[in-house]
Amino acid sequence: MPYSYVSYLDCPKCGETYDVNTVQQLCTCGAPLLVNYDLEQLKDNLKPDELKDREDSLWRYHELLPVADCKNVISLGEGMTPLVEMSKLGSELGIKNFYMKDEGIIPTGSFKARGAAVGVSKAKELGVTELAMPTNGNAGAAWALYAARAGIKSTIAMPIDAPEITRKETAVSGANLYLVDGLISDAGKIIGKYVKDNQLYDVSTLKEPYRIEGKKTMGLEIAEQMDWEIPDVILYPTGGGVGLIGIYKALNELKELGWIKGKLPRLVAVQAAGCAPIVKAWKENKTESDFWLNSQTTAFGINVPKALGDFLVLEAIYQTGGCAIAVEDEAMLEEQEKISSMEGAFVCPEGAAAFAAVRDLRNNGWFHDEESVVVLNTGAGIKYPNTVQVEVPTLNKEAKI
Amino acid sequence: MPYSYVSYLDCPKCGETYDVNTVQQLCTCGAPLLVNYDLEQLKDNLKPDELKDREDSLWRYHELLPVADCKNVISLGEGMTPLVEMSKLGSELGIKNFYMKDEGIIPTGSFKARGAAVGVSKAKELGVTELAMPTNGNAGAAWALYAARAGIKSTIAMPIDAPEITRKETAVSGANLYLVDGLISDAGKIIGKYVKDNQLYDVSTLKEPYRIEGKKTMGLEIAEQMDWEIPDVILYPTGGGVGLIGIYKALNELKELGWIKGKLPRLVAVQAAGCAPIVKAWKENKTESDFWLNSQTTAFGINVPKALGDFLVLEAIYQTGGCAIAVEDEAMLEEQEKISSMEGAFVCPEGAAAFAAVRDLRNNGWFHDEESVVVLNTGAGIKYPNTVQVEVPTLNKEAKI
Repeated sequence: MPYSYVSYLDCPKCGETYDVNTVQQLCTCGAPLLVNYDLEQLKDNLKPDELKDREDSLWRYHELLPVADCKNVISLGEGMTPLVEMSKLGSELGIKNFYMKDEGIIPTGSFKARGAAVGVSKAKELGVTELAMPTNGNAGAAWALYAARAGIKSTIAMPIDAPEITRKETAVSGANLYLVDGLISDAGKIIGKYVKDNQLYDVSTLKEPYRIEGKKTMGLEIAEQMDWEIPDVILYPTGGGVGLIGIYKALNELKELGWIKGKLPRLVAVQAAGCAPIVKAWKENKTESDFWLNSQTTAFGINVPKALGDFLVLEAIYQTGGCAIAVEDEAMLEEQEKISSMEGAFVCPEGAAAFAAVRDLRNNGWFHDEESVVVLNTGAGIKYPNTVQVEVPTLNKEAKI
Repeated sequence: MPYSYVSYLDCPKCGETYDVNTVQQLCTCGAPLLVNYDLEQLKDNLKPDELKDREDSLWRYHELLPVADCKNVISLGEGMTPLVEMSKLGSELGIKNFYMKDEGIIPTGSFKARGAAVGVSKAKELGVTELAMPTNGNAGAAWALYAARAGIKSTIAMPIDAPEITRKETAVSGANLYLVDGLISDAGKIIGKYVKDNQLYDVSTLKEPYRIEGKKTMGLEIAEQMDWEIPDVILYPTGGGVGLIGIYKALNELKELGWIKGKLPRLVAVQAAGCAPIVKAWKENKTESDFWLNSQTTAFGINVPKALGDFLVLEAIYQTGGCAIAVEDEAMLEEQEKISSMEGAFVCPEGAAAFAAVRDLRNNGWFHDEESVVVLNTGAGIKYPNTVQVEVPTLNKEAKI
């Protein structure tokens, strides 16, 4: 039995195919490449019940991941994050089955660990010794740390305004770190030139094919954790959109395997009002988005003015009957506090945005009664301490409360 | 089949017993109380293999936890943290089987979540509506958030020097938070008076009996994750020492159940050179420690000058043939960087102290060849960003690397 059923890469735009055993970046047409598996064969060889005894990490789905030899797996125990019931909030919003997939409970404190674990493992398998990327913070921290574990050299460029903790994480990994006085798109230009000049592996969002495969495991886990009864709606805070693309890809693979049945969940892309290119494109019924000028939001992780995979995000929304919705910064910060004090979960601002979107969609009647809803919280609130203001009394030693 | 096999509480000092169905604090003799289970009956009713299909949280061990009714469980998905192989570091140190139990991968980012989850759940079961505690930061954050989830009001006092992120977490939970211009012992005095005046539930370290039970699950998980072949040595960064007491208690319970066999692991208490009361007591072969004057260390979580459970920590060390060892702050920070750049794990300074201790103990011949060693990393490095100094270039948008 093979460890992986990976077969080949193909381009979702022009259909060109590529070999999975050599280093690949974008398609010659400029689009990201997707990974294909021999699902027909896998269908005969694996039943979902056999997963039960496996390790509690995303590697439990190794047949559906691109790493061919388990010796190349670089793992810090990532995945199988909790699916937490949010019954108090659900009851307030009138949603009976309300869950949070908590991606803060993972190495490096954000869902970026999934893409990094799978991407770095595959890079190691392909013999990569050096990689480079621009980042808004969390992805750079994750890739730098997993690369360190793999013995791969990394060069990371992030905006000077990226969350300070991610700067510390990247630095402590021993990566070559650069701060850029600009946006992630500016950091991207600098890295683009650097990888070209030095013929390095470019692991920018979607410029290598394997990050999606790591993110895909969120979809696999949600399905397994709900005992293969998939939810009606999944909401995802959307910057580059890789998680949403990955979840959609996972659900389609599971459907082809016959492990899930019926209609796919309606996928919802949640963006910040200050950076909402996907929402704009969806409202205009377009298949691609335009660059969002002067983007700004507290939810730094979703400050992505133009995503390379925008057409895949929009396809996933259209195909599942989902939607795209924008949330004001103020509303997401209010929601963050509400979730903490009501449910005990200190979520990141991006996750809070997705919860705020649930509130808006519920109020405008977009949910039906009795639907089951899953919100992705993409990272731990502790990575963004500046979103919480504390004004409390300081006592001297002899004080009395 | 009962959900829990909890039977009664008893005092490890004077032997007095107490009811588990009413609120209890310390024994009348001043010592902490311990929880007892009907292990004879459990032995007949549960086999370790039956655990395999259970949920990936510490509640998989519900028979060995004090909550009698599953309806009272307050969970954010805590537990079953990864046991990560540290093969590169192990190879450098000449330790063949070297693992890190990574307690950063848990709600609230520290192992304090375990004690809080079980402690708050039992408090809810006992009808508690309000609790109070002093904290060095992480425990307060965890108890405040779990209390919020349970609908229990909390009052938390922490030193003004406690890690700022824990202040944010506690505040965002909606707790009554006070900062104290002093040490945790000063905060403890203020809370002590407050709970007495208002007849509140005091959840200070070991002043209620259930936090140990939560921490105990680290020992249960290590045993299960190693397929019931327990390691030769476990190292634990020791402040209040509850984790070490809990692990020792867990291993004894597993032994009584017949789930593990042979000699218990040698338990090692690791402290900071600037606050090492347990180390001093162990070196002097004493059964209790003295208050450590003017304690100071970067590893804030183990800055505990005198632990209420010191005698239990020392007993666990003596009974297992372990030891106690102190580490300089400089050595732990060096080790923190080493672990990040070599193994890709950004550990907290307390965890780094335990790794530094492995290095010292290996150098002085305390380990035998071929031993298996487990280090507890008690929290995520991202909770202590100030331990990492970053000096990197800032580029303008047009720059070239």
